[in-house]
Amino acid sequence: MSHLSDLEIAKQSTLRPINEIAEKVGIPHDSLEPYGHYKGKVDITKLKDIKEKGKVVLVTALSPTPAGEGKSTVTVGLADAFNQLNKNVMVALREPSLGPVFGMKGGATGGGYAQVLPMEEINLHFNGDLHAITTANNALSAFIDNHIYQGNELNIDSRRIEWKRVLDMNDRELRQVVVGLGGPTRGVPREDGFDITVASEIMAVFCLSNGIKDLKENLANITIGYTVDRKPVTVRDLKVEGALTLILKDAIKPNIIQTIEGTPAFVHGGPFANIAHGCNSIIATNTARKLADIVVTESGFGSDLGAEKFMDIKTRKAGFDPSAVVIVATIRALKMHGGVEKNELKSENVEAVKKGIINLERHIQNIKQFGVEPVVAINAFIHDTKEEVQYVLDWCKEHEIKVALTEVWEKGGKGGIDLAKEVLRVLEKPQQFSPIYDLDMSIEDKLETIVQKVYGGRSVKFSDKAIKQLKTIKENGWDKYPVCMAKTQYSFTDDPKQIGAPSDFDITIRELSPRTGAGFIVALTGDIMTMPGLPKKPAALNMDVNEDGSAVGLF
Amino acid sequence: MSHLSDLEIAKQSTLRPINEIAEKVGIPHDSLEPYGHYKGKVDITKLKDIKEKGKVVLVTALSPTPAGEGKSTVTVGLADAFNQLNKNVMVALREPSLGPVFGMKGGATGGGYAQVLPMEEINLHFNGDLHAITTANNALSAFIDNHIYQGNELNIDSRRIEWKRVLDMNDRELRQVVVGLGGPTRGVPREDGFDITVASEIMAVFCLSNGIKDLKENLANITIGYTVDRKPVTVRDLKVEGALTLILKDAIKPNIIQTIEGTPAFVHGGPFANIAHGCNSIIATNTARKLADIVVTESGFGSDLGAEKFMDIKTRKAGFDPSAVVIVATIRALKMHGGVEKNELKSENVEAVKKGIINLERHIQNIKQFGVEPVVAINAFIHDTKEEVQYVLDWCKEHEIKVALTEVWEKGGKGGIDLAKEVLRVLEKPQQFSPIYDLDMSIEDKLETIVQKVYGGRSVKFSDKAIKQLKTIKENGWDKYPVCMAKTQYSFTDDPKQIGAPSDFDITIRELSPRTGAGFIVALTGDIMTMPGLPKKPAALNMDVNEDGSAVGLF
Repeated sequence: MSHLSDLEIAKQSTLRPINEIAEKVGIPHDSLEPYGHYKGKVDITKLKDIKEKGKVVLVTALSPTPAGEGKSTVTVGLADAFNQLNKNVMVALREPSLGPVFGMKGGATGGGYAQVLPMEEINLHFNGDLHAITTANNALSAFIDNHIYQGNELNIDSRRIEWKRVLDMNDRELRQVVVGLGGPTRGVPREDGFDITVASEIMAVFCLSNGIKDLKENLANITIGYTVDRKPVTVRDLKVEGALTLILKDAIKPNIIQTIEGTPAFVHGGPFANIAHGCNSIIATNTARKLADIVVTESGFGSDLGAEKFMDIKTRKAGFDPSAVVIVATIRALKMHGGVEKNELKSENVEAVKKGIINLERHIQNIKQFGVEPVVAINAFIHDTKEEVQYVLDWCKEHEIKVALTEVWEKGGKGGIDLAKEVLRVLEKPQQFSPIYDLDMSIEDKLETIVQKVYGGRSVKFSDKAIKQLKTIKENGWDKYPVCMAKTQYSFTDDPKQIGAPSDFDITIRELSPRTGAGFIVALTGDIMTMPGLPKKPAALNMDVNEDGSAVGLF
Repeated sequence: MSHLSDLEIAKQSTLRPINEIAEKVGIPHDSLEPYGHYKGKVDITKLKDIKEKGKVVLVTALSPTPAGEGKSTVTVGLADAFNQLNKNVMVALREPSLGPVFGMKGGATGGGYAQVLPMEEINLHFNGDLHAITTANNALSAFIDNHIYQGNELNIDSRRIEWKRVLDMNDRELRQVVVGLGGPTRGVPREDGFDITVASEIMAVFCLSNGIKDLKENLANITIGYTVDRKPVTVRDLKVEGALTLILKDAIKPNIIQTIEGTPAFVHGGPFANIAHGCNSIIATNTARKLADIVVTESGFGSDLGAEKFMDIKTRKAGFDPSAVVIVATIRALKMHGGVEKNELKSENVEAVKKGIINLERHIQNIKQFGVEPVVAINAFIHDTKEEVQYVLDWCKEHEIKVALTEVWEKGGKGGIDLAKEVLRVLEKPQQFSPIYDLDMSIEDKLETIVQKVYGGRSVKFSDKAIKQLKTIKENGWDKYPVCMAKTQYSFTDDPKQIGAPSDFDITIRELSPRTGAGFIVALTGDIMTMPGLPKKPAALNMDVNEDGSAVGLF
């Protein structure tokens, strides 16, 4: 096994100029906008006559554990494997948030020999998309407060402004603030708060729009709060959807980069997988579908969260069906779901794997319920034993589930050939995909369907607040939107400690928050943090720059 | 005269690929990092063995009036004129702030046929420098608050934190806020405020650093506040100078673009000209001096503000002398200084020009005091009459001042040939440049020197607060720093209404604010706004994007 760090492997890799990567998938020279030598953006207006053709392979995972599952690594490695099999393939990934980088070590660009590059830039400012989203979000806040300050023609109730400011920063100090202090020349005092940028509705809108025109329309639909007589106030009422679109006009172009093995990758958009839907932009996925025959993409957390939202929210807006789904499992995570503590993962424990496989089993059922055949990818880690791996392989065979051991971290695309071949078998067969609920159903029924079919639970309970909000939602005709579940990723239930595959549980909806721009109703269960904090010893303390300008301590 | 708008002229211009522009001044291929086809950044580490040779021409102006003086236009046009005379020339300008763009119409890239391009991008996110500075500033805030939250080892007094958060936005609502509300998991409640990004000390540090190493050292020197026992707390104490430098590692590379006539231009860094020093980055100016024989650059506001700081702050850190200074005057502005109201500027009024010329006269004296021969540029406007212009030409000749009428707005470089020839005559003669005060002088004496010699005033008065702050400054050994005056740009006095050339006035120093990272003491006079607001009908209301992705309503 390799003993180099991700950063060392990245630094040893020879990158090809981005125009060569773009040419490989037929992007015309004049629609590639280079950002440095190894990154670019694609002006999609010049590709509008190309038909989408690529089949979409979605990569999801079992319920995350502190052991890590390596979903991005498998996504990249699988694409590299297709590339080695001479398939015309692209990867479509989310772009990471800058804020968390200063807190804990660790990037979001895959690992080992299955990475997208240049990792330093992707994990820092990349091509500026998150900055543009931060700016659009905060411009809207400034427009709202300026409207009130300048006479409040729309009669906005400053106590009922739902729109919060954002920063791409882990900054707990800004979770709850009072703004507009200092007298009449300094605005109107009111309560406010800052979320991290990836939790902004603008990020969700950005990822769920099909082009500039659709983006503007969706931005206009955002509800920022309510008037004194409780009527919704939208961006359209404020007449600033044009300005917000202008702020995003370059960010909306998908970012093209490459994997270590030179497979072209779009890395674009990165909404939170809890209070948003957790997938990269529709524009990136659909542009990749114009350029490649196979598009490998991922969704956040396990099949109960990211994949469910991919199926029920993203595909409806994007207009494609997923043609295959890969579920990433690791022996370590299965052992944790079987009750083993993190510090005991290094010892062989086939019994724990056996016990933990119920978690994988439910994720497999979930994917099947959407009408797509899943393929299990066992993502190899250094301490896995032969017996542990063999147990999972045998279990899958016994249950007639396609499965492959992948060693992409260690071997790159070569380590994913078996997985790629299993996926190709699925791609050859037509799938019977459909979302798990109809949009015509009531919000309550949609929630009940998800809880029963996807989480394996009993029923849904509503807080008093949520019941009031349900009323508002119906009154405003927002009940035909899909729901976007905000639930802990660690459990099928709303309690992060209930790992494995619990049953006979209820889910309590604390709050229902309409996102009329993104076009979904967020259903909050448990405590969902929308602005993280920094740890006692943040990773920032070890960061530096060499005199040649290269990064130190970023990973 | 042309009747096209600046945007129309810009759109009609044919841009050359940025690599051709870079080649023109000998930038090696591998040190140009393209950002799209017409913008780039230059990796200066690869130019470190080239000696600086270029002579610096500084463009300043008379005291600004609401009529506008067109300083950037003349700066760009003068460079284009040198280009037409086959001189090896570059422009070095400040980059504009995004926030104000949504408030009032108007960009900061010159005008008419003397513009830098692409104006849309420069006025929006450009190459992301301001976003990086915003991020670095707010990361530091998060590190400070996290330090206090995690036990406050340094014993920081949360009531004495001088470091404020920033946004690149006109947002009066954030001028004064309370953060850290909501209980023990949400930080420690304290007062805070947001400035606009260009007012951040990080912007000043960014512009006054000579490279990555110097940048890190200067960031480490920033004083963020005081301990409970009143000792200064620096970024070095928090150990985050490496992380802040990392955030800025790409931003610090100068941005290369072109004028309408293809003259290479660096547009890099843009600190406020009131609470900071108002010049583009030293790195850009000195890199331009490596590449070109003549570097045309500008400073903010009139000679009393931007030029004084250019002479007394920037040149000391950058290690060069200005070789010539252009003072931009317009007939309109002279008339306003002569007492004419803005709505009466279209009528001929030689008497008002005669009266207003005292303002120009004092700016001329100012530049002479620094030991550099000034050249007056009369920047032609459509309603100027022959007699009005002739009066200024005659007056200059009579006083043995070099002068030229420039028509760069209408004619581009061709309209600046006369001016360029006058400037060349100055460049042929050695100048006796020296700053107006020695760094060894006390803060009081430095202030007195500026007020008497540059403003033409009598003396300096100090508020009680400033007297206390003087004591702190001396105790901490900060009295050897230069001073950075924060004064209204409209008058030589601290009262914006006293136009022309007042005398027998005192200047009151309200506050003295040490900027130990930037290396100067800000002296605040009058009310200096560090976070602007939006007007009742912000320009944002007219902004939009065409379906081809181009901007609407930006200018």
